[in-house]
Amino acid sequence: MKSGAFEFKSTRRVEFSDTDMAGIMHFSNFFRFMEATEQAFFRSLGLSIHDNRRRPVIGWPRVHASCDFRHPLRFEDLVEIHLQVREKRERALVYSFTFRRLNEPSSPEVARGRLVVACVSRPEPQGPMASIPIPKSISDKIGVAPV
Amino acid sequence: MKSGAFEFKSTRRVEFSDTDMAGIMHFSNFFRFMEATEQAFFRSLGLSIHDNRRRPVIGWPRVHASCDFRHPLRFEDLVEIHLQVREKRERALVYSFTFRRLNEPSSPEVARGRLVVACVSRPEPQGPMASIPIPKSISDKIGVAPV
Amino acid sequence: MKSGAFEFKSTRRVEFSDTDMAGIMHFSNFFRFMEATEQAFFRSLGLSIHDNRRRPVIGWPRVHASCDFRHPLRFEDLVEIHLQVREKRERALVYSFTFRRLNEPSSPEVARGRLVVACVSRPEPQGPMASIPIPKSISDKIGVAPV
Amino acid sequence: MKSGAFEFKSTRRVEFSDTDMAGIMHFSNFFRFMEATEQAFFRSLGLSIHDNRRRPVIGWPRVHASCDFRHPLRFEDLVEIHLQVREKRERALVYSFTFRRLNEPSSPEVARGRLVVACVSRPEPQGPMASIPIPKSISDKIGVAPV
Repeated sequence: MKSGAFEFKSTRRVEFSDTDMAGIMHFSNFFRFMEATEQAFFRSLGLSIHDNRRRPVIGWPRVHASCDFRHPLRFEDLVEIHLQVREKRERALVYSFTFRRLNEPSSPEVARGRLVVACVSRPEPQGPMASIPIPKSISDKIGVAPV
Repeated sequence: MKSGAFEFKSTRRVEFSDTDMAGIMHFSNFFRFMEATEQAFFRSLGLSIHDNRRRPVIGWPRVHASCDFRHPLRFEDLVEIHLQVREKRERALVYSFTFRRLNEPSSPEVARGRLVVACVSRPEPQGPMASIPIPKSISDKIGVAPV
Repeated sequence: MKSGAFEFKSTRRVEFSDTDMAGIMHFSNFFRFMEATEQAFFRSLGLSIHDNRRRPVIGWPRVHASCDFRHPLRFEDLVEIHLQVREKRERALVYSFTFRRLNEPSSPEVARGRLVVACVSRPEPQGPMASIPIPKSISDKIGVAPV
Repeated sequence: MKSGAFEFKSTRRVEFSDTDMAGIMHFSNFFRFMEATEQAFFRSLGLSIHDNRRRPVIGWPRVHASCDFRHPLRFEDLVEIHLQVREKRERALVYSFTFRRLNEPSSPEVARGRLVVACVSRPEPQGPMASIPIPKSISDKIGVAPV
């Protein structure tokens, strides 16, 4: 039984524009980092989160997003974001994300996030989105992380 | 028994820079909208989320943030964000947020969010943050929404 | 000779997520503020910067953007953004923007910006944009500020 | 005569959250990309744009920012940002930036930007910033690009 990819790691550095006046990364950027990692995961499978050349266009709107923040991230911190596929439903994917600060010997975990994304199709661009089963060509490439 | 304020409503319009290529508001901006409403709530009580003139400086880092998205928001939609204080702990506040699209007769609920924010003090600016009990001068002004 | 509107003022408050670790508004947000004022200007004329229901869709990509920063803006500052139409070309508009901090008796000017925006049409959504003359229905409503 | 570094190149991919409903990268993000390249340039010299451990803290507020946009950037485009130091004044640096889209055989230039940044010191964090001559330890490492 062939199973698909169920995890992906990316690293990035906290930029000045990611910080706020408290001197730490603004919490909303953790969500941007999760999404960018999801996109790199798709890219690593030869897929795209938003492929305008494909007809019909497939989209992945977020149904749920959450994050627990344990330690702050600061300017120029090097962060590893570890994506794991937690569930593969007929019409949705559930991801977990673990954030680690790599520029410290212990690489402490700083945050944990979760995204639930629905598979939708837009028959007409800018038109209403409708939930669809995840196409087989995508679903076959994605597995579920062992517990 | 005198109780403090436990809710606040703000309205704002979705801006072009809030949207993404899917033609809807990017989900990370729901978190910015929650936070801006929290700040307006504090301002309405004569307080500030981040008062640099106060010594020691008090901060409110996010410990948890989550949002469930039901319907998308689009460019120029008029949104009402309804903040309610759900819990007042010794060292943290728990808020819920309801998003409604006002430019529709039924004002449908489009999203529901939640923030848990910890009260911290920074004895030295840019220094480490330490959790503290919510100061009485702040706590007295804040109540808890009835269930 | 009837002439169109050539200026518009909006005010907004600097939000926490607008700031950076230097304790001031991140400079990229001045450009977001300019654009939001341009959108409110259009809205005040019964127009929209990006109207997806109109066929063909009209867009206004930025050809040039610049800003000179004199004084910083800080969290919770109340800012007035004064848009003035400087030129109305066949296929483009030129705006100037003056930023003033209202929460100070002298309302000092803190920044000056400029946007040049081209009128384009997208025959097919997500397709290539092509420069077009500003439609008369729009052009008639817009004037040029006296020098 | 020893001269310092006068250029730096970085590449990055356009993320979903960088786009807007017109299907292209929002123009404000070109400014974020410039700044991130400036930060990587400083890092490559063993410096930091914002070093909180240094006393007094040195900052580099933007005095001027501009950009000319020739072609749009789209989701997942791979962009090269080429920073060049154009002027080294006593109290300021002037940078130019060229943006190229690498995922096209001709690597077309898509935009050109410019930043003027002033060297300031903040004797007291969150206090007023005062312009200072660029410290010799920094200035010695930075050269000016040949015309």
